[in-house]
Amino acid sequence: MKVVNYKDVLPVVMSNETVKNVAGRVMIGKQDGAKNFCMRVFEMGKNGYTPRHTHDWEHEVFVHTGTGEVLIEDHWHPLSEGSAIFIPANIEHQFKNTSDKTFTFVCLIPSGAPEL
Amino acid sequence: MKVVNYKDVLPVVMSNETVKNVAGRVMIGKQDGAKNFCMRVFEMGKNGYTPRHTHDWEHEVFVHTGTGEVLIEDHWHPLSEGSAIFIPANIEHQFKNTSDKTFTFVCLIPSGAPEL
Repeated sequence: MKVVNYKDVLPVVMSNETVKNVAGRVMIGKQDGAKNFCMRVFEMGKNGYTPRHTHDWEHEVFVHTGTGEVLIEDHWHPLSEGSAIFIPANIEHQFKNTSDKTFTFVCLIPSGAPEL
Repeated sequence: MKVVNYKDVLPVVMSNETVKNVAGRVMIGKQDGAKNFCMRVFEMGKNGYTPRHTHDWEHEVFVHTGTGEVLIEDHWHPLSEGSAIFIPANIEHQFKNTSDKTFTFVCLIPSGAPEL
């Protein structure tokens, strides 16, 4: 079992040509004995975005703070606190922050996919 | 794919001798094509609690609003916004609200378990 606040976990900062101003944390994963799916938390600063990509596993996402948008195939959807997003496998997607406030979301993936 | 805010989904209100003042929603499940795991959102009012029980599937939980406590085996752990909780299969557990504010959490379960 595990009880931990994401603010108490050191993040992995991601910034390169495909991802900007993103900090990620594995909150619950293989190391904790979670065999079926993995919980990550991502924080995105101003003008931040994740890669525009596709892969053969799904995402289940919940927006905790801030506002953003998600691209799913060719359409951008507005997101706010409390939004839930299902992105099936093999669908192109990208997340971006649309305000000055930190955009924080929980993103779950099935076991077997890279945890971060 | 699916993009929806939990506030726009009608909840199932739960109140009987084992659960008090809880409203639950399936946000992402079998009906959406989610094959591996299921996302639910629970809101708990003042003095609310979930059943004290055990079952043969795990929980991965993220606290969105409010404060509460979770019993895992014989110990109560304080929870606040941003807490992540992993409860393995077959471990006794219970959630309760500890303030006047709505305690809202996301709770994920593997496919095959009852969605709500």
